[in-house]
Amino acid sequence: MNAYPSKLVERAVEQLSTLPGVGRKTALRLALHLLSRPPIDTHTFADALVEMRDGIVYCRQCYNISDTELCPICSSPQRDSSTVCVVQHVGDVMAIENTGQYRGVYHVLGGVISPIDGIGPDDLKIPELIDRVRSGSVREVILALGTTMEGDTTNFFIYRSLSGLDVRLSVIARGVAIGDEIEYADEVTLGRSILTRTDFDQSLSF
Amino acid sequence: MNAYPSKLVERAVEQLSTLPGVGRKTALRLALHLLSRPPIDTHTFADALVEMRDGIVYCRQCYNISDTELCPICSSPQRDSSTVCVVQHVGDVMAIENTGQYRGVYHVLGGVISPIDGIGPDDLKIPELIDRVRSGSVREVILALGTTMEGDTTNFFIYRSLSGLDVRLSVIARGVAIGDEIEYADEVTLGRSILTRTDFDQSLSF
Repeated sequence: MNAYPSKLVERAVEQLSTLPGVGRKTALRLALHLLSRPPIDTHTFADALVEMRDGIVYCRQCYNISDTELCPICSSPQRDSSTVCVVQHVGDVMAIENTGQYRGVYHVLGGVISPIDGIGPDDLKIPELIDRVRSGSVREVILALGTTMEGDTTNFFIYRSLSGLDVRLSVIARGVAIGDEIEYADEVTLGRSILTRTDFDQSLSF
Repeated sequence: MNAYPSKLVERAVEQLSTLPGVGRKTALRLALHLLSRPPIDTHTFADALVEMRDGIVYCRQCYNISDTELCPICSSPQRDSSTVCVVQHVGDVMAIENTGQYRGVYHVLGGVISPIDGIGPDDLKIPELIDRVRSGSVREVILALGTTMEGDTTNFFIYRSLSGLDVRLSVIARGVAIGDEIEYADEVTLGRSILTRTDFDQSLSF
């Protein structure tokens, strides 16, 4: 797809293809779709994106996306503010919220430590996490980062930074996913699920 | 994904999920991606789409998207303006152009006749096609619409409308795609490819 009939379309395709998972062919399809709809639709579409980007606020406590200075989770009296779940991204908060299994609060790091990309602890909300724990109201920190080398490094850095403070540090369980066949589970996960097995009578309570 | 952390994100997700092939989960991923990039990127992105939608011009002869009143294909002296290929959408023009096999010009209908959707010949550029042929400079009209009932209806309508005029009406070849195994070709296509077989020595020239 080289020959775009119009520079305007070409520019729109270029911009659309900067989205993750959108190649030039899909971008063209999206551009032609916008052209097939009334102009007002494209204005509404573009306005929604710009207003989101310009108007977005991050919660001053957990750094989750919010419409207010303190997000609904942090300000809710229903939530246990002494349990803090540490996640990489805003999307992770939504994923955990959708399970309906967690009543604590969050701390969004904004990424993980990655020396190769030049991302150190101070580029993330790690100092803020340590301050939050030091302030004394946190009893447990749950690590829920991705299981990559960077995630493990970040976990270890937080573990070291919090050592000496009176706080329980836990990490979410890794194991064979519910509904998965043992036969098809990857060996690292399966091996770990055997090492970190739980008592059967304890598993009955879930 | 019900609990959006922000109304602004929710509105952006709603708008993004109006795109074809984008569900709410993908839309959320796209919205979070935009949030992870500098605000100026979202402005550039939105501006490109709005400028395309507002600035787009359709060629007054073939109704293809264009930056000028007469599109580069229609205005090119290299193209054979006596052969007109009739297509449904702008994307079809690009697909045919990318083959590098066609030296004629186009006529973009903007859709096909579909009584169920209330689309009649006058909602499309069919009257314009007939006028174009009547003007006398067209020697062949090639039908390249989709093989759906609506495409066939439209083909037949054009066939009837052009009957009596001194113009050759052809339709693109349907058959087993190059690289496809005979065994896996669908039976309608395979049946038609046998009925419309070509002389072997003729096929050698391609």
